[in-house]
Amino acid sequence: MKKLIECIPNFSEGRDKEKIERIVDEIRKQNGIKLLNYSYDKDHNRSVVTFVGEPEEVIEAAFNSCKKACELIDLRIHKGEHPRMGATDVIPLVPIKNVTMQECIEYSKTLAKRIAEELNIPVFLYEKSAMTPEREDLSNIRKGEFEGMFEKMKKEEWKPDYGQDKPHESAGVTAVGARMPLIAFNINLNTNNIEVAKKIAKAVRGKSGGFKYCKSLAFEIKERNIVQVSMNMVDYTKTPLYRVFQVIENEANRYGVSVIGSEIVGLIPLNAIADIADYFLKLENFNYDQILENQIYGDEL
Amino acid sequence: MKKLIECIPNFSEGRDKEKIERIVDEIRKQNGIKLLNYSYDKDHNRSVVTFVGEPEEVIEAAFNSCKKACELIDLRIHKGEHPRMGATDVIPLVPIKNVTMQECIEYSKTLAKRIAEELNIPVFLYEKSAMTPEREDLSNIRKGEFEGMFEKMKKEEWKPDYGQDKPHESAGVTAVGARMPLIAFNINLNTNNIEVAKKIAKAVRGKSGGFKYCKSLAFEIKERNIVQVSMNMVDYTKTPLYRVFQVIENEANRYGVSVIGSEIVGLIPLNAIADIADYFLKLENFNYDQILENQIYGDEL
Repeated sequence: MKKLIECIPNFSEGRDKEKIERIVDEIRKQNGIKLLNYSYDKDHNRSVVTFVGEPEEVIEAAFNSCKKACELIDLRIHKGEHPRMGATDVIPLVPIKNVTMQECIEYSKTLAKRIAEELNIPVFLYEKSAMTPEREDLSNIRKGEFEGMFEKMKKEEWKPDYGQDKPHESAGVTAVGARMPLIAFNINLNTNNIEVAKKIAKAVRGKSGGFKYCKSLAFEIKERNIVQVSMNMVDYTKTPLYRVFQVIENEANRYGVSVIGSEIVGLIPLNAIADIADYFLKLENFNYDQILENQIYGDEL
Repeated sequence: MKKLIECIPNFSEGRDKEKIERIVDEIRKQNGIKLLNYSYDKDHNRSVVTFVGEPEEVIEAAFNSCKKACELIDLRIHKGEHPRMGATDVIPLVPIKNVTMQECIEYSKTLAKRIAEELNIPVFLYEKSAMTPEREDLSNIRKGEFEGMFEKMKKEEWKPDYGQDKPHESAGVTAVGARMPLIAFNINLNTNNIEVAKKIAKAVRGKSGGFKYCKSLAFEIKERNIVQVSMNMVDYTKTPLYRVFQVIENEANRYGVSVIGSEIVGLIPLNAIADIADYFLKLENFNYDQILENQIYGDEL
C-alpha cells in the first residue's frame, strides 16, 4: 500500500512570477509527485503550493523548493501584508493515505533536520510536530516576524528545534510540522444581524469553550444581506463537521434564525464527506473501502 | 481526461474453479484494466466479476471473457438456482468517470455486435440500452431461461437485437446493456413487526407508487429481533438515498417505530456519498472536484 502525504509549502514571494515558477519547478521535476495547485498574492507577497506524493519524494521536493527559495528570496527586502519569518515560511505535511500522523511527524523532523544542516536555516517544529505547547500554534512562533527573530531567538524558550540560534541572513527561519487537513467550512444564516453570527461563532469556537478543533469568525455578506459563521475545521476526525453544523442550527434557532446554506471552500478529504453521510444515514459498519473510487484507485497515485 | 467505465459480467459457472480462473484470466491479461473483485456461488452455479478501465479495454476484456465462457460452459448441462440464459448471462456497463450514459449505450452496442458476429451468440440489449420498454427489465428478457429461448425467440417481439434468431447451441444468449451503478441500501427498524417493514417497503418501492428507481423488500433479522427494509437503488442521481431515508423515517414514525440504523452492502460511488453530505449540510455550489481524492487521482486509473 503506497503511503501518500500532502505538502503545502508557503513561500515569501507573490510578485515575481519567474521566481515563483523556478521554485515550483523544483517540485514539478520530482518523480512521483503530483502538483495539485499553486497560487500567489501580490498584496500578501506570498505563494502557496500544494502537492502530494509518497513521503520520500515529498520530502525531496519540499527540500529542493526550500533550497531554491533560499537562493531567490531575500527577506531583508521583502514587504507584504502577510506575516512571514522565512523565504520558505512554513511547510505543513498532511497524512492522506496509508500513513499515520506519527509517521508524518517523523517525516517533518527528517525534513527539518535537512533544511537546518544543508541550508543553514534554523527550523521550528509546529502543530502536531511541536515539542512544546507554545510551538503548536504557528502564530506564536512567527510573532516578531523575520526582523524580530534575531532578538527573539536569543531567548532560551525560542531556540529553534534544529539549527543555529539566529536566522539565516537572507532566508530567515522556517516552520515545519505535521497537521491534519484543514477544511474551510462556512454556514450562512437568514439574518443580517451580525451580533447573532458573532454569538454563534463564539459558541462553536474552541478557544472560547466550543469545539476544540474549530476556529471561527463572524462575517457580513452584504450582497446577500445575510451573515455567516466562517470556520476552519482543523481536525475533522475529532471535531466532525456534522456536529458543528447541528449545534449551529440549534443556536440559530434560539435566536429565531435559520441556517440557509453552507459551503466548503477549497478541498475536503473524501473521508470527511463520508463521515457526514455515515452520520445522517445512521450507517452501521460503513467502511471507507466501500467507496468505489477507493477500490479503483487503491494505492496508486 | 480518461474515461472510466465499470463492467460486471455474470457467468454461468460457480463450481469449477479452474474454469472460473480461466475466464477471469481473460480480464486479468488485458492492459489498462483493474480487476476489482470476483466471486462465485455453488448453489447459484454462477460467478460475478467486477472490473474497471477505459472503454476500449473494457470492451476487449469483456469480449475475451465472453469468448472463453462460450468455450468452457455448456448450458445444456448447467444446473443452478439462479435463472440464466447464457454462458455469459449478462454484461452490464456502468459509467464511472468522464463518460456519459449515452456513450455507455454506444459501447454496449459495439460489444453486443461483436459478440453476435464473432461468437454467434445472439444478444439482447437491456436497461438503458434497451430498444423497447419490455427489454429494459432483464427478467423479462430472461423469462423461460436457456431452455425456453428456442421457442421464445421465434416470436417477432423476442427477436434479438443482434445476431441470429435462435440461441447459440451451448452458450445460449447474452444480455448487454448500460446501467447506472446499483447501490444496495438497507434500513433497520426498531420493531420485530414484519408488517410494518412490508408497508414501508411498499411505500418507497417504484413499482407500487414509490420512488421510481427504488426496488424494495421487507425482511426479518431474527438474530437482532428487528425488521429491515432492503433496497436496491438503481439510479441514485434520480432517486437519492437521503430522500428515501427521510421518507422511511416519516413512515416509520407513523407506526410509532424508529430507524435504528442503515447499511450500504458492497460498493457505493463517491458521488452518491457526496450527494448525501451535500443535502444534509445544505451545501451551496458544492462541486465533486472539491474532494481532495478527485484532485489527486484526476484521470488516472
